[in-house]
Amino acid sequence: MPYASPSSSSTGRSWWGWGAVDKALSDAECAALGQLVPGAADTPRPVPEVSAPALPKVRVEPPAALAPLMSAAPRDRASHTYGKAYRDVIRALSGDLAAAPDQVARPRTEQHVVDLLDWATGAGVAVVPYGAGSSVVGGVEYRGDSHRGVVSLDLSALDQVLEIDRVSRAARIQAGALGPALEDQLRPHGLTLRHFPQSFEFSTLGGWLATRAGGHYATLYTHVDDLVESLRVVTPIGVNESLRLPGSGAGPSPDRLFLGSEGTLGIITEAWMRLQERPRHKASATVLFDDVHAAMDAVRAVAQSGLHPANCRLLDPGEAGLAGVARRGESVLVLGVESAHSPVDGRLTELLTLARDHGGSPTPTKPGTPDGAADTWRSAFLRMPYLRDALARMSVVTETFETACTWSLTPELYEAVRGQLADVVKEVTGAAGMINCRFTHVYPDGPAPYFTVIAPGRRGSEAAMWDEIKSAAMGILHDHGATVTHHHAVGRDHRPGYDRQRPEPFAVALRAAKRALDPAGILNPGVLIDPTTAG
Amino acid sequence: MPYASPSSSSTGRSWWGWGAVDKALSDAECAALGQLVPGAADTPRPVPEVSAPALPKVRVEPPAALAPLMSAAPRDRASHTYGKAYRDVIRALSGDLAAAPDQVARPRTEQHVVDLLDWATGAGVAVVPYGAGSSVVGGVEYRGDSHRGVVSLDLSALDQVLEIDRVSRAARIQAGALGPALEDQLRPHGLTLRHFPQSFEFSTLGGWLATRAGGHYATLYTHVDDLVESLRVVTPIGVNESLRLPGSGAGPSPDRLFLGSEGTLGIITEAWMRLQERPRHKASATVLFDDVHAAMDAVRAVAQSGLHPANCRLLDPGEAGLAGVARRGESVLVLGVESAHSPVDGRLTELLTLARDHGGSPTPTKPGTPDGAADTWRSAFLRMPYLRDALARMSVVTETFETACTWSLTPELYEAVRGQLADVVKEVTGAAGMINCRFTHVYPDGPAPYFTVIAPGRRGSEAAMWDEIKSAAMGILHDHGATVTHHHAVGRDHRPGYDRQRPEPFAVALRAAKRALDPAGILNPGVLIDPTTAG
Repeated sequence: MPYASPSSSSTGRSWWGWGAVDKALSDAECAALGQLVPGAADTPRPVPEVSAPALPKVRVEPPAALAPLMSAAPRDRASHTYGKAYRDVIRALSGDLAAAPDQVARPRTEQHVVDLLDWATGAGVAVVPYGAGSSVVGGVEYRGDSHRGVVSLDLSALDQVLEIDRVSRAARIQAGALGPALEDQLRPHGLTLRHFPQSFEFSTLGGWLATRAGGHYATLYTHVDDLVESLRVVTPIGVNESLRLPGSGAGPSPDRLFLGSEGTLGIITEAWMRLQERPRHKASATVLFDDVHAAMDAVRAVAQSGLHPANCRLLDPGEAGLAGVARRGESVLVLGVESAHSPVDGRLTELLTLARDHGGSPTPTKPGTPDGAADTWRSAFLRMPYLRDALARMSVVTETFETACTWSLTPELYEAVRGQLADVVKEVTGAAGMINCRFTHVYPDGPAPYFTVIAPGRRGSEAAMWDEIKSAAMGILHDHGATVTHHHAVGRDHRPGYDRQRPEPFAVALRAAKRALDPAGILNPGVLIDPTTAG
Repeated sequence: MPYASPSSSSTGRSWWGWGAVDKALSDAECAALGQLVPGAADTPRPVPEVSAPALPKVRVEPPAALAPLMSAAPRDRASHTYGKAYRDVIRALSGDLAAAPDQVARPRTEQHVVDLLDWATGAGVAVVPYGAGSSVVGGVEYRGDSHRGVVSLDLSALDQVLEIDRVSRAARIQAGALGPALEDQLRPHGLTLRHFPQSFEFSTLGGWLATRAGGHYATLYTHVDDLVESLRVVTPIGVNESLRLPGSGAGPSPDRLFLGSEGTLGIITEAWMRLQERPRHKASATVLFDDVHAAMDAVRAVAQSGLHPANCRLLDPGEAGLAGVARRGESVLVLGVESAHSPVDGRLTELLTLARDHGGSPTPTKPGTPDGAADTWRSAFLRMPYLRDALARMSVVTETFETACTWSLTPELYEAVRGQLADVVKEVTGAAGMINCRFTHVYPDGPAPYFTVIAPGRRGSEAAMWDEIKSAAMGILHDHGATVTHHHAVGRDHRPGYDRQRPEPFAVALRAAKRALDPAGILNPGVLIDPTTAG
């Protein structure tokens, strides 16, 4: 298991940045890190104290019956203002908390959720569902002023595995369960959900479902969607519970309407999830390539081979260099195979043959030893959000964006981002900066490229600078037939790209479904759907 | 390839029954077959001639611009009246063509489809999409009288593979392509869609997509849904085209709203479909079990093993006996593994070990020889619809229904159908009849059981008798948490079961989406959604 299992309580969580307070870099570490980015600030931005005066006035008070579930404490409001995008971190560090919710609600039962929605519907109060707040797309941040107030609906108290069906290998799990808490409850049964997004420690099942999250398995079951047997969703017009089914052809899938609905159609309170046995056989290897396009061809061959590696992550030369797994400008492919049932060495051998056929130089890992580049990269991977925060404090513009497109469009997209977007970065920041790429997931018909941008920013303008770069990035994705997001959801930040990408009749149907399920328009307004759209 | 590749033209197609006229059983063969069912009629129902007097008056004429696409010829109207359910065949044989459409339209371009919907929307004429008419759930049969007329929209002229993206292994295919025509066009490229429903020869890509059809692969990619990269759908408010994407997390999947919409939200005109290389390695075996529940446990172990057999079909003792693959009351498991890339013998060995662990007696097939029970069963499988028609002519009540449920509910469901439904069959027909079961698809969390009912009927009452049995079957499925359909869609016949099964808020959302996309309510009215439902 690549992840630690911290307590599921929010004690020790950073209010402004990623994860645990005690894992954040010190001022001195921030300064040292900043020196690696030419043009970064000399000293870190200070982390502001959370105090009442910085927060806007509370506009709405809960009715007596709901008051015990609600808090307007400054730290609660501040920590529920933003997600964890770069621009969120910057704004929190700047002390800009104008978007803070009026109240944070923490339901302990599904009936509490029902009661809260009833009240909010009647009172015209916006409800923004909040799992663990790891959104990087403005998914948990209310914008605008068309509601009487805003409640952040924090589901973290609904964190139990309620039932396990060992025979069918499925479990009924509450939406507020964090990754580690959920796995802790499944482990005694020898089972696992095997859904490990990078945010695993600080994100919840409900958040994964509402945003169609991607786990760290590279092939086959990548998005959480495929692990869903049934959903239970509280909507303003009633509770929606689908039948537990291994497969069905009865009309359009009810679950697929709510998967990816990002809190706009209802609040997911629990789900029956398909589980797997814990893998007993594992093998991994890394493969170096001198040419990044040859490496991409190798990955395509792997993705189309039917060998279904659990891990198949391609790091381009910049990404591999930054992670410290290649020193001479090589691209690095990290391959891993796993099985609960059968030895996997044969499969790894076949994968390495494919890689070799495309010019790769494999380095298999000896059984029982740490697997070199794969482990090095994985530690870096889990550390990344903390490094990102540290760089943010050094006024470095540093953010990621991910996409997916067909294999035939991939080389041009890669070059366009490395070329056109690099020009934009230079224009905006005045420095060359760095744009790296990795493939996080691969499919027979295309990969999910994930780009990282790092460039020095001007203190006070960092968020605006990133917004300009991001807008150009969305344009490039659109021009190259690539999705605005592969697994980070749409939220509010991706809506311009999403509005262009989504077919218009579907948009009309989605708005109609929204009006039918949420007639008062209180559910996460501004996410997915422009609330000002007529019709 | 288990399938012949007949011409894609409709020449030689039966107007009243399954498939090709020249494959239907002769009167003498029907009579001989009938003798196997105690209580069957002595002589076959005659096949009526199609003549104008039997058809209702044509109520609506097309405008001049569309007239060249339309036909009101008796044979066209008769052959587009029903699908191919047992009750459809019986009614056609009875000469009951009251539900015949007024016109059959055969668009040759997408613009024709647009123009037809525009006209129908203005004229208040119902449009019933028609691929190749293999619906077994009343999906292509208009019922009611709330429209000025009915047009059957036959898409069979849109039958081309328009584009192939070899690198991304995908093809843009028109919705009216029949299975064999589609595969014929892909074969020169070494590619295949590998979607082989039982109806393969007589059903179309568009029909598969609109009904979430199931192919004959038992695991992994069972429903056609997973093979879809993007869809193009003509709705009354505009054309909906999704981006070609290997994966995406941008909002609820637009394609998943149209997959399974059964022509109620729009007309699918083409799709980018994910292809596969043709398998080069194959191995198969059959396993006999003395106890059907032990066999189910073995199948569950296989489904949860991650070994992904291409074929994993369990025949219960009755089904195995009927197909002639077991003589002494055994259950038979047919296993097959395939790969385009790697030898599969190791996988088959692992599967057989699992089967043996659960009390099975495997019979592996020698390479290069026909695989015994598997081949015998496959021939029977493809012959089944013709035998069904022959039995129908002998006034035997003979029909199938399929479902899916979790493994934990499966044994009780199986016993309930074999017990309670057998009682109903006896009550309705006065004879013990026969209820057999096979698993057509299996998932880690449950199987898709497929039941066949055979019992003698009373001439003139066969459809009513089946309706009574079917209604009881739907009740049993509902009581056991099983879906009303795994891969035969909802249509009009399954709506009572679907209405009970579908969560109400989703129903509200679906109706809202329908009203938004099809404001005049012309698209396949009565399918999925009760047109009289308020709200």
